[in-house]
Parts: sequence; C-alpha cells; structure tokens
Amino acid sequence: MASKISPLSGFPELLPEQRAVEQRVLDTLRSTFELHGFAGIETRAVEPMDQLLRKGDTSKEVYVLRRLQDADSGNDSGLGLHFDLTVPFARYVLEHAGKLEFPFRRYQIQKVWRGERPQEGRYREFAQADIDVVGRDVLPFHHDVEVAKVMVEALAQLDFLPAFTLQVNNRKLIQGFYTGLGVPDVDEVMRLVDKLDKLPADKVAALLVDEAGLSVEQAAQCLALAEIRASDDSFVARVEALGVVDPLLSEGLAELSALVQACRPLITDQVSVVADLSIARGLDYYTGTVFETRLAGSESLGSICSGGRYDALASDGRTTYPGVGISFGVSRALVPLFTKGALVADRPVPSAVLVAVSDEESRADSDAVATALRANGIPCEVAPTAAKFGKQIRVAERRGIPYVWFGPGSTIDATHQVKDIRSGEQVAADPATWTPPSEDLRPQVTSVSNEEKNQ
Amino acid sequence: MASKISPLSGFPELLPEQRAVEQRVLDTLRSTFELHGFAGIETRAVEPMDQLLRKGDTSKEVYVLRRLQDADSGNDSGLGLHFDLTVPFARYVLEHAGKLEFPFRRYQIQKVWRGERPQEGRYREFAQADIDVVGRDVLPFHHDVEVAKVMVEALAQLDFLPAFTLQVNNRKLIQGFYTGLGVPDVDEVMRLVDKLDKLPADKVAALLVDEAGLSVEQAAQCLALAEIRASDDSFVARVEALGVVDPLLSEGLAELSALVQACRPLITDQVSVVADLSIARGLDYYTGTVFETRLAGSESLGSICSGGRYDALASDGRTTYPGVGISFGVSRALVPLFTKGALVADRPVPSAVLVAVSDEESRADSDAVATALRANGIPCEVAPTAAKFGKQIRVAERRGIPYVWFGPGSTIDATHQVKDIRSGEQVAADPATWTPPSEDLRPQVTSVSNEEKNQ
Repeated sequence: MASKISPLSGFPELLPEQRAVEQRVLDTLRSTFELHGFAGIETRAVEPMDQLLRKGDTSKEVYVLRRLQDADSGNDSGLGLHFDLTVPFARYVLEHAGKLEFPFRRYQIQKVWRGERPQEGRYREFAQADIDVVGRDVLPFHHDVEVAKVMVEALAQLDFLPAFTLQVNNRKLIQGFYTGLGVPDVDEVMRLVDKLDKLPADKVAALLVDEAGLSVEQAAQCLALAEIRASDDSFVARVEALGVVDPLLSEGLAELSALVQACRPLITDQVSVVADLSIARGLDYYTGTVFETRLAGSESLGSICSGGRYDALASDGRTTYPGVGISFGVSRALVPLFTKGALVADRPVPSAVLVAVSDEESRADSDAVATALRANGIPCEVAPTAAKFGKQIRVAERRGIPYVWFGPGSTIDATHQVKDIRSGEQVAADPATWTPPSEDLRPQVTSVSNEEKNQ
Repeated sequence: MASKISPLSGFPELLPEQRAVEQRVLDTLRSTFELHGFAGIETRAVEPMDQLLRKGDTSKEVYVLRRLQDADSGNDSGLGLHFDLTVPFARYVLEHAGKLEFPFRRYQIQKVWRGERPQEGRYREFAQADIDVVGRDVLPFHHDVEVAKVMVEALAQLDFLPAFTLQVNNRKLIQGFYTGLGVPDVDEVMRLVDKLDKLPADKVAALLVDEAGLSVEQAAQCLALAEIRASDDSFVARVEALGVVDPLLSEGLAELSALVQACRPLITDQVSVVADLSIARGLDYYTGTVFETRLAGSESLGSICSGGRYDALASDGRTTYPGVGISFGVSRALVPLFTKGALVADRPVPSAVLVAVSDEESRADSDAVATALRANGIPCEVAPTAAKFGKQIRVAERRGIPYVWFGPGSTIDATHQVKDIRSGEQVAADPATWTPPSEDLRPQVTSVSNEEKNQ
C-alpha cells in the first residue's frame, strides 16, 4: 500500500512498548479522576473558527480544515482543530447545559493540535488530560482545592515519573497587592513581572519603572512579592511584612493558604506543593487560583500541568458558568522521557505467556491452553509457527514474554509444563489453575536514570 | 468565553451517561484484545495527502489541513486527517518495521474523519476499533481465524448490544469459482454481483449477461453461488453441487470451512457466524477471507464490523507485509442506539456515594470519609454545599447516585450511616470497611427495547 515513508516533525508516534507506558499513565489518571466522581467526556476534534479565534494570541496556531471535494472553490469548512480542551469544554457546557447537573465535574483526555514550530516538549499533535469543575452562577472555593488535590493524587501514583512540584498562586493576591500598592495599571505590572523567568530582576525592575510608571520603591515591593516561595502558610506572614493592605489581597492570601494547607498531606519524596508568588499564568483569563507544575530534571520543558480558576469559563449572556481546572500535558511530560530512553515498558506485547505449538495438527490443543489461561485473566499468545522449540523460545525472548507453555504432547512425562525463560526453571502446571506472579501479568514500566544507562 | 452555539451535523457528541456506555465498550474491547496478545498503538491523526489519495474512490472525503498562519499563501500543509486506521497502520508498519516483531498483533482505537454527507450511521468524525495481524513475507492462515474469533469474543461480551451476525466469505472461493466457470472478467463479475444488496437478482443476471459477457447459464451459476448461506460447513457440498472445479476454489472452500468451524464454539443467542457467499467487500484490496457484520434491527446501518485478508497490507519494494484484520465501527454501532434512546448508563457520574456535609466547618470530616471510601475503590463525591439534607439527597437523586453517607455529626446516635436512596434504607456503617454491592460500584449499562419504552 505505502512505499515512501517520511517521518513528520512535531507528530510524535510511540512504539508499542512506549504506548504501554502512556496507556498506564492514562489508566491511572482516569481511575483517580473517577474515584473522585469526575465523569469522562470527549468533545469533537473540531470547533467553528470563530470559537477558536476568541482567545487571541494562539489564533495563529490553528489548523484549518478544508474538504478535498471543495477543492475548486478553495473554501475552508469554517472548522479548525481544537488547540486545547478548555475552549471545547466551555462550548460543550453551553450546548448541553440543560442536560448536565451542576457543579459538573468532568475529565477529558484527548489529542489537541497546534500548527506551531516543533521543539522539545512542544508538538503539533499532543495529548492532554484535563479535569474541571464548573458551576452554574456560583462555584465555591473548595473546588479549587479539590482539583489540585485530585491531580496531585493522580500524578503521585505515577512513581516512575521524575519528582514534580506543583506551584500555586492566586490572582486575587497579586491584584490586591498591586492595588493596595497604588500602581496605575495592574495588568501591565502583571505582564512585566511575568517576564521574571526570562529576564533578571533588575531589568524587570527597570521596566516596571519605565513602562508601568512605578516608583522605584513600588517596583521593589512587586519584586519582593514575586520572590516569596513556601511549602506551608509561612508565606502569609512574609506578604503581610511587606506592609500592603487591601481586601482582595486578604481574600487571596486566605484562599492560597487554605489550598497549601489542604495539599500538605499529599506531599512525599516525589511530590512537592509550594506557594510560588511569581506564578501568574501570563495573560490568561484566570481570576483566582493558578497552577503550574515543574518536572525535576526537565525544567526546560516549562510547566507540564497548569490551570486555575475562571470566574466565567462560559457564559450565554443570561447564565455565567464559573470553573476551575487543571490540565496535564501527557505528551509534553512523557515524550521527552521516551526520546531520552528514560522510560519504557519491559515488553512490547501484553502477553505474559507464549503457548508453544508442537505441530500444526495440534494447534487446536495450544489454542485450548491459551483459552484456559485467558479465562483466568492471563494475556497470552500461541506461537505463530510450529518451529523447533528453541526457536519458539527465542520468539518469546525477543518479545519479552516471560513464560513459554508446553503441552503434554511435547514434554517427556506428558504433563503440561511452563518455563520461566528468564530463570530457565520449568515446572508442571495446570492451565486451569496456574497463574504467574502478579508483576508478570502486565508489562512493567521501568524508568532508567542516566546513571544506570551509563553503566 | 462562548456565547453562540451551533451544533455540527456529522460530529456526534455524547452526554456523560452515553460516554460511560462507550467507555465500557472500549474497555471490553481492549481487555479482550490484550488477553489475546494484541498490543495497543495509536497513530498520528494526519497523513501526507499522497498516502491518503492512493485508495482512489474515498479520496474526495479527506479533510485537508492548512495552518492559519499560512493564510496569505493559501497553501495547504500537504497533510490530511486519516479516514480509516488501515492506511496509517500500513505506514506505521513500514516506518517502524525495524523495531517491531512479526507477526505483529496490534489493536488501535481512534477517531477517523471523512468529509462525506452525514446520515444515520455515517458521520464526519467517528471512532473505530481495529485489530490486525501483520507478518513479514508470510502470514499463516490461522491468523484469519484468530482475528475473527477475537473480535467475536469481544463483541459477544457487550450483552447490552442487539444480537449480531458475522458474515464470512473468501475471495479465493469467489475468484476460483468464476475462473472455473470460465467468465471473461472476474473483477467485473464481482463488481456486478456485489450489487445484489441494491438490485433484484434478475436485474443483476441481466447485467452479468449484458455488461460482463456471461452466458445465461454462467450468470445463473454466479447468482446460485451468491445465494448460499450456512452457519456450518454444509456450504461446501452446496458449492460442489454446482459442478465448478478450480484449485483456487478448493483452497477458498477449505479456508472458509476452517473459519466457520473454528467460530462455532463462540455462537450464542446473541452471536451468529455464517458463511455468506454473497459478501465480497466491494472493490477493496482483499485477497482471501472477508468479513462483514450486521446488527439485528439495525440492518439499514450496513456492516458495523468489516475486514479481511490482504496479501500486501504494506510493501517497501523489497519486503511485503501480508495482513488480516477486522474493524469495529464503534460510533456507527452505538450512536444510532443513543439517538433512539435504546442504550444508556444508569447514572451520568462515576460516583456511587454522595457524602453529605453538615456545615462548611466540618467539610474536612466529609472529605475524610470520601478518602476512606476511595481507598477501597469506591468512587464518591462530597456534597457541593452544606444544604439541608433533603436537598443533598435530591442532589444525589438527580445524578443517579445510589447512596448518601451521613457522618457522626449528623445522625441521632452519632454513628456513620449510609442511606440507599432507592429503598430509603439507612444503616450504620464504617467508612473503612463498607462497600456497596459490586453492581452499584460503576454505572450500569441498560438497553431499553422499543417495547419497554412504549409501556
């Protein structure tokens, strides 16, 4: 069918042993989301262009669709591929609001597409896993805490991933602080302070004075706020020590403090949660809590898990739907680890057992053994040909299948026998009752550190 | 964010209680495929246009992609959305052949897109679940039997679906029969006989004489062959009684007979497997076994599960990769049942329990109960507000959540209590050990027959 193959930059594709890892990640996320009552939905891959272009600065990255049969007219379909899962979710909520119960908890795990220039951690096609809670008219703050805890709990179970840090902040805190400080243009100050991850502090201070019209003292206060980091609520006292007073600031401090306190039981060697008062999530439309997440050793990827609170996730003019959510960049986190060879499953097939075949006439006997094993939930396959047993064992070896099964027609004492080809141990076994150790049932995910690879 | 909503024809989107059904279907398929050693892969959504256009007659249905930032040049990206999973799989095999073990068993569950006019069972975006086995240079016939059995076993577990019939045939049988009969153009005869599902037999007989140059007797023989149907190997004698002799015919008869015999143990009230000698799969590039599947009561949808054997699924000029596969049209089978209201889950949320909240100050206590339940694998959610208990129970009712949990702060004797809101029964329970009956743990899929709906 095909003859020339040209790999496509920006469209990562996984080998089976990599997809097995991704699938494990997706299953773990989904299981955790469902334990917390989040319902799974999918939205169509396309949205009308006028919906996609509302967001402004990402508009240039949309893939527009045209039906080939409209070639003569050259007309676009008016549809584009979605570039995130938030815009489609907001549209889904409005379109189906009459059939949904609020607050509506949903998770959504799908591919999204952006026509941007590919680089490490940035792809043209990639998978995201989003959770959001959306209310009608109102949404209590405790849902901000809920989405943070659910995502941290899910990611913490992926113990083969590098350690990660969830960084939390609150827009009310920042806006209230700037307002209390008396700065002329709060948004402009936020935009400039957000440059701290690219520019040194003294340059940002100069910009705050030159471009935002702040006094040198005000600029210093803004930078002092952005320097505050804490893994407990000690940040409250440090902010208060800066001497700025504002009701919105107080509200933001109380919310952020509650969030950090609620996440403390989830902290482990692998999981950190810190209040980081420099996080603002750029020019996005967040109105309270904001989240970012860094993966240890992969800080250059940027945030792999981001989100926050929107006071108006969606609105139809009469009703407003506030929401809070967080989005894990599945491909952004995993694909660089696959590329580095740092993460892989120990076999490319689900099969735990290869059932040997003595000769083609007795293939049905081998099929019957496989059927018995499958009835006990053991994934297995029957050897493709009745080659010499040494060759059949090598078939299993090449696939990483740990066990080879021999039927009574092929063993000296005419019993069923199963061989662990890693140890070479071969024992009599009953296909109706034998099961392997549970760690052999499914492919195991192994993370390979650089030290191990260098050995 | 959004304000005007226009539903898009041909892009079906599911409510949470429908997606729960689809998810159950996908989980069952995947579990069965993995038990049989099929590895899951995904391919990127796009392929180069020159790959997509090879197939000829579907070329007009491709969605072509253009990056919005290339607006001025008006240039397409040279990429289109895949319209099936076979073309991308063939490309994947060639691109990654050096890293795959053959025979390579894979399943692939993804969306595909076609720009065609939407109608019942035909969508512009739809999900397919494919399994294929592909060999390098050779692929024994027993894999034809394998893919049929695996798909039938998977579908048979979806007992909430209508009964279905897998129709099998073999191209070698048809081609051998026509060759033995001495017809001038085998392909032309096959094309005309394939019209039997749209035209009456006498019209097709006339076309065979007029357009394919057959004698009246030859035309009658061709129609006699196409009329043969059997759920066992009795079809062999009926074909032989037609008196045509050809080595390819004999080979096809032997293969089809073996396939039908091997599938007989899978037949139940819900599952039929029949040799149907009228099935040819149109002009597709099949070379042996062919499959189609009809859903009882939904015959107008056409085949919901099709496939067959390709002697050259892929080739790079030096190596040829024969394959056999079968593709279940997930959306084609399910969406019409959703539209009719014939299939739904009994609740739109995963939650089995709603944990009531006495007052916002004690929300942490309710969270702790939820955490204990989740540790035992019980999906649950905590009430969104500390409303009156009657109102919290109605929140659970509206979501179809079967149980409401009350903590010691809210019960007369200061015990934990759980209420089955269907029966009204309320009993003392320990959050560390209580579990609901297993059928309450997950949303149950219910199929509603027309009779029940009319009651």
